[in-house]
Amino acid sequence: MASTKVKPLGQRVLVKRLDEDETSGGGIIIPDTAKEKPQEATIVALGTGKNEEGKEVPFSVTEGDKVLISKYGGTDIKLDGEEHLILSESDILAIVE
Amino acid sequence: MASTKVKPLGQRVLVKRLDEDETSGGGIIIPDTAKEKPQEATIVALGTGKNEEGKEVPFSVTEGDKVLISKYGGTDIKLDGEEHLILSESDILAIVE
Amino acid sequence: MASTKVKPLGQRVLVKRLDEDETSGGGIIIPDTAKEKPQEATIVALGTGKNEEGKEVPFSVTEGDKVLISKYGGTDIKLDGEEHLILSESDILAIVE
Amino acid sequence: MASTKVKPLGQRVLVKRLDEDETSGGGIIIPDTAKEKPQEATIVALGTGKNEEGKEVPFSVTEGDKVLISKYGGTDIKLDGEEHLILSESDILAIVE
Amino acid sequence: MASTKVKPLGQRVLVKRLDEDETSGGGIIIPDTAKEKPQEATIVALGTGKNEEGKEVPFSVTEGDKVLISKYGGTDIKLDGEEHLILSESDILAIVE
Amino acid sequence: MASTKVKPLGQRVLVKRLDEDETSGGGIIIPDTAKEKPQEATIVALGTGKNEEGKEVPFSVTEGDKVLISKYGGTDIKLDGEEHLILSESDILAIVE
Amino acid sequence: MASTKVKPLGQRVLVKRLDEDETSGGGIIIPDTAKEKPQEATIVALGTGKNEEGKEVPFSVTEGDKVLISKYGGTDIKLDGEEHLILSESDILAIVE
Repeated sequence: MASTKVKPLGQRVLVKRLDEDETSGGGIIIPDTAKEKPQEATIVALGTGKNEEGKEVPFSVTEGDKVLISKYGGTDIKLDGEEHLILSESDILAIVE
Repeated sequence: MASTKVKPLGQRVLVKRLDEDETSGGGIIIPDTAKEKPQEATIVALGTGKNEEGKEVPFSVTEGDKVLISKYGGTDIKLDGEEHLILSESDILAIVE
Repeated sequence: MASTKVKPLGQRVLVKRLDEDETSGGGIIIPDTAKEKPQEATIVALGTGKNEEGKEVPFSVTEGDKVLISKYGGTDIKLDGEEHLILSESDILAIVE
Repeated sequence: MASTKVKPLGQRVLVKRLDEDETSGGGIIIPDTAKEKPQEATIVALGTGKNEEGKEVPFSVTEGDKVLISKYGGTDIKLDGEEHLILSESDILAIVE
Repeated sequence: MASTKVKPLGQRVLVKRLDEDETSGGGIIIPDTAKEKPQEATIVALGTGKNEEGKEVPFSVTEGDKVLISKYGGTDIKLDGEEHLILSESDILAIVE
Repeated sequence: MASTKVKPLGQRVLVKRLDEDETSGGGIIIPDTAKEKPQEATIVALGTGKNEEGKEVPFSVTEGDKVLISKYGGTDIKLDGEEHLILSESDILAIVE
Repeated sequence: MASTKVKPLGQRVLVKRLDEDETSGGGIIIPDTAKEKPQEATIVALGTGKNEEGKEVPFSVTEGDKVLISKYGGTDIKLDGEEHLILSESDILAIVE
């Protein structure tokens, strides 16, 4: 994990984009012609989990989960040289098991 | 089912588009001129069922159901060579019995 | 009714458009110049009745009711050769008694 | 009233547009230059009164009330040769007493 | 007051625009260059006070109050030859005491 | 304060724009290139404090407070020759102590 | 801290942009090509914490926290010669630990 720690706020998570050779083999292929092309990533850190009213909503993902994320939404940052993304949990489409 | 497992998040489901010869015979014909052309698909996996407040809302569909889905909405992915779609349950129009 | 059964999801209903000779005689005439031209239809099937929070909301229409529906909204499908429409109950303007 | 009966759904009402000679004398004049020109009409039938959650909300108007309605909104239909309109009660601006 | 009575529906009020010589002397001057130019008016009648859920919300203004109203919003009508306006109470900016 | 009194409605406040020589010395400088340029003002009068449901919400500002207000939003009026503004409390960014 | 004190209203915070040499070393690099480029800043002051209904929602950040903020949103002000920003807590993406 990154030596610089980033703790997302609220219902956001920090994810690391997966390199081509880390993606789930031949299992998931995202067609180039897909209307909205999802991306594979790994959960690096969960946010504080507080919603806008200040109540805690438990996350459905945990650190280390491999996920499919929506192409749109999220903010790119580089942590220790690697591409990361801070995004809302609602922009995670699915967990790849 | 796909060897690679995909667990949709929240109120999303994973569906597989039906090939022409799998669709419901002469029963349902979707006119080419339809304003919004629905598509037939089969439910492959249900999501976690948690809504945005973290509460569980039961699904009205189950694995194996043949459904009509809205043409718009959803994200295309290929699983083991077959076209799938992750979409919100609210984009399912009807169950074909 | 159609031999292929279609069960709408949520607060949607399945309706069959009325042919000219089935409409309510000289009673209702929808002017060609109407801003939003409604259409006459018959309720074929009610949905599951669950709203987005998973709670059941009773329908105000029943199978067989002749209704006026909003021109916009709804998805066209053909069932056993006849034009049908899946639409939200909130797009039904009135019951024609 | 119309021989063909129309029962509006939800918080909608059925109104009949007033002819020029039926409007409220010299009392109300709607200026041609008005930004949003209202229209006079009579309440013909109340809807079922159920809101989108299925709860009954009492109407503030009753059959026979002469009302001012918003120019925009509503759907035109002809009942037994006379111009009617199905519109939401919230598009009624005022009752003319 | 007008001989023809108009009872606004819901949280609307009926106001009469003030003539130049009725406005609050030199006290309030609305600059011509104001981004949103308010207008002075007098409350003629309060609405039924029911909100969209059918609950009664008390008005903060009463008949006879001199008010500043937002330029946008509201519907012009003429009552017994005088310019009136039906508008939502939320479009009243302030009471001029 | 103004001899003509203006009582804002709801969660609005009446403020007086500060002249250049009244602003907070060298303390706060609002860069000309700021995306959204705030302005300094003094609270002259608080509104009735009722929200849209008719419930009273206490103000976080009081008469005499010096505040930073959002450039957009609010309605200009002149009271006894001085520039004032009626705006929603939510358009106040901060209190300058 | 600034000699002129600024107390943000509601769920807003006051932050100071970090100079290049104050940012988190080589740890976080925000790619120039990032769709939405975040910025590093330090929390200078918390707001009153009242939400729009007047209820207090505790902040998830505290004075002195180093944070990543969304590029869009917020209002620039200069306090004692240094660039500050008043922004909603919901525009803070993450705490940099």
